[in-house]
Amino acid sequence: MVLGRSRAPDSLLPVTDCSPTDLLALTAELVDHTSVSFEEGPFVDWLEADLRSRAHLTVDRIGDNLVARTQLGRDQRLLLVGHTDTVPVVEAADLVGGTNAIARIEGDTLWGVGSTDMKGGLACFLELARTVAEPAVDLTFVFYAREEVAQVHNGLIELYDERPDLLEGDCAILGEPTDGSIEAGCQGTMRFEVTFAGARAHTARPWMGRNAVHRMAGALTAIAGYEARRPVIDGCEFIESLQAVHVEGGVAGNVVPDRAMLRIHHRYAPDRSVEEAEAWVRSLLADHLEDDDTVEVIDRTLACPPSLDHPLLQRLRDDNDMTVKAKLGWTDVARFAEHGMPATNFGSGDATIAHTKHEHLERASIERTYAALHALVT
Amino acid sequence: MVLGRSRAPDSLLPVTDCSPTDLLALTAELVDHTSVSFEEGPFVDWLEADLRSRAHLTVDRIGDNLVARTQLGRDQRLLLVGHTDTVPVVEAADLVGGTNAIARIEGDTLWGVGSTDMKGGLACFLELARTVAEPAVDLTFVFYAREEVAQVHNGLIELYDERPDLLEGDCAILGEPTDGSIEAGCQGTMRFEVTFAGARAHTARPWMGRNAVHRMAGALTAIAGYEARRPVIDGCEFIESLQAVHVEGGVAGNVVPDRAMLRIHHRYAPDRSVEEAEAWVRSLLADHLEDDDTVEVIDRTLACPPSLDHPLLQRLRDDNDMTVKAKLGWTDVARFAEHGMPATNFGSGDATIAHTKHEHLERASIERTYAALHALVT
Repeated sequence: MVLGRSRAPDSLLPVTDCSPTDLLALTAELVDHTSVSFEEGPFVDWLEADLRSRAHLTVDRIGDNLVARTQLGRDQRLLLVGHTDTVPVVEAADLVGGTNAIARIEGDTLWGVGSTDMKGGLACFLELARTVAEPAVDLTFVFYAREEVAQVHNGLIELYDERPDLLEGDCAILGEPTDGSIEAGCQGTMRFEVTFAGARAHTARPWMGRNAVHRMAGALTAIAGYEARRPVIDGCEFIESLQAVHVEGGVAGNVVPDRAMLRIHHRYAPDRSVEEAEAWVRSLLADHLEDDDTVEVIDRTLACPPSLDHPLLQRLRDDNDMTVKAKLGWTDVARFAEHGMPATNFGSGDATIAHTKHEHLERASIERTYAALHALVT
Repeated sequence: MVLGRSRAPDSLLPVTDCSPTDLLALTAELVDHTSVSFEEGPFVDWLEADLRSRAHLTVDRIGDNLVARTQLGRDQRLLLVGHTDTVPVVEAADLVGGTNAIARIEGDTLWGVGSTDMKGGLACFLELARTVAEPAVDLTFVFYAREEVAQVHNGLIELYDERPDLLEGDCAILGEPTDGSIEAGCQGTMRFEVTFAGARAHTARPWMGRNAVHRMAGALTAIAGYEARRPVIDGCEFIESLQAVHVEGGVAGNVVPDRAMLRIHHRYAPDRSVEEAEAWVRSLLADHLEDDDTVEVIDRTLACPPSLDHPLLQRLRDDNDMTVKAKLGWTDVARFAEHGMPATNFGSGDATIAHTKHEHLERASIERTYAALHALVT
């Protein structure tokens, strides 16, 4: 059931110069195709049938990932990339209808899970795939599964493993919610597990032991006192971060603890390699560690440079007088960078309300996004 | 089954001037009466029958606690106090017979659970109860249950609640393992739970939040840098301690944590009241806390002064040219101090091997202990 789907008669007129379609209503239709991670199948079936009905597209399906391409022999090929899954549905009494699984339009706002992250982006891509049969550059639409869960499940990895040829091209735009502005590149991430060693003793005789929790004080002071590095790349200011995200230690109420563990999350800007970033964190910690402590990298991801000097991304920015800032978080653009392809984040919706039960999308945001993409490819 | 219980013929002779009994063999007999906390009943039944058979003793049983008194109208009454329970039995392949529940004498060493803590002490008291019918001071033997478990179960509390008259007297000796020297009084203890407040944020934008784990750095530095106060009371040097014994915090790998918790254990010397000790810790922490942090005292116990100026304790020390030191841990002597009675720790066995699977008792230790007690009461 879609509540409030219909618009007032005057707003049935196309609201942008480039699309006769009500993009908010199209997004609502996509929201109603519930597609929580690992359960994207039926939604992907529906998308696949739609895309296969378009004669100008070649469609491939790999698992629950869908790739639709124009084959016009253009000089350039642009990838328009979006994930089909959403975070879990929320059932709550303070939601209209008791759930955010049902799309609801109120005025120029669409409510529902995934409206921002990222069925608005998908609606833009789907509309381009349906209506722009002869784009100025060849287009590859990539709809991939399982982005909102552990990276090991990510559909882009599956595609790169099984059919890397489908992802060839010159440049990629990832439809993550950026509210119609460019959030260029992304920072890399790295998590460390630091284990501080000690020796157990009875708390009545602490000098017989070595308190591993006390030993964290120096490293915590260094981390808390860290001032963020802020490199500017292609005019975008990145802001690195270093945060203790987990701490644990302790044996019993009267025992000097012999082990304490600190997990640290580091985001680094794309002017550093992953190795440089790791070496920097290790050097910061070194003064506060002793020989029997350990520092282990439990995961790390690559950064992605802004690449705003690529002709297509440059046009996206310049033709729309667009706000450009650095993406401080990590997104799948880094997977394209890893394969040597310039990529940026550009989509509709406000990222700060993504993953909340009151997720919603404004008409102005999606129409601005669509207009810029349409101009870029026509 | 008691392995190796019998002694070589020459050692059947009394080894002290004051006891014809083989005290190590008597302790072995008590070890064989297994009495893990909450399961002391059968052992207490056996003790009760033995004590009731002695015409010079008045015996009262309250639950699984046993009190046996002489009623000679002496000027002074000395309490000889021991707990009947032990920590759990250990079954392990590297133990002779596969368990430490079975007493085993090898030469002058007795192996078995509770041999040190504190069936050696009980053996001394039982031997005095059996053999000294006309002591120089009236004696109250207190055998109490459930010392090795949470304090709420402690048999002394039950006795003080139900029959405080049975615990009246001038002075108490608690048979905790001190290897035949005096460990005077005891330090009080106190545990604090300190909660550091913060505000969640995405680690890509940590300036939107407040990292509660980082905020612990100051308090941890202060605690780690604390130099122990060492007051000397009645010639005994107490050494206080302040130890972080538990730490926890963290929400998720990419979230600035909004809460961190530190548990702190403090032992304070008996020249401070419990209120003074608490105020001191709070003042040490105060510089490192903010308004929305909390400091909660989760438990606290009283200290016990050495009381070595009490005539009986003074005699115990002086007549035996005895080593005297402060008890840095906490023991049930504090319960007597709380009720205004001087008390000290004095028993056989090495406390550092109590509660280990290889717990054992040396003959010299129990014989030295018994000789001093015997001299004191005769």
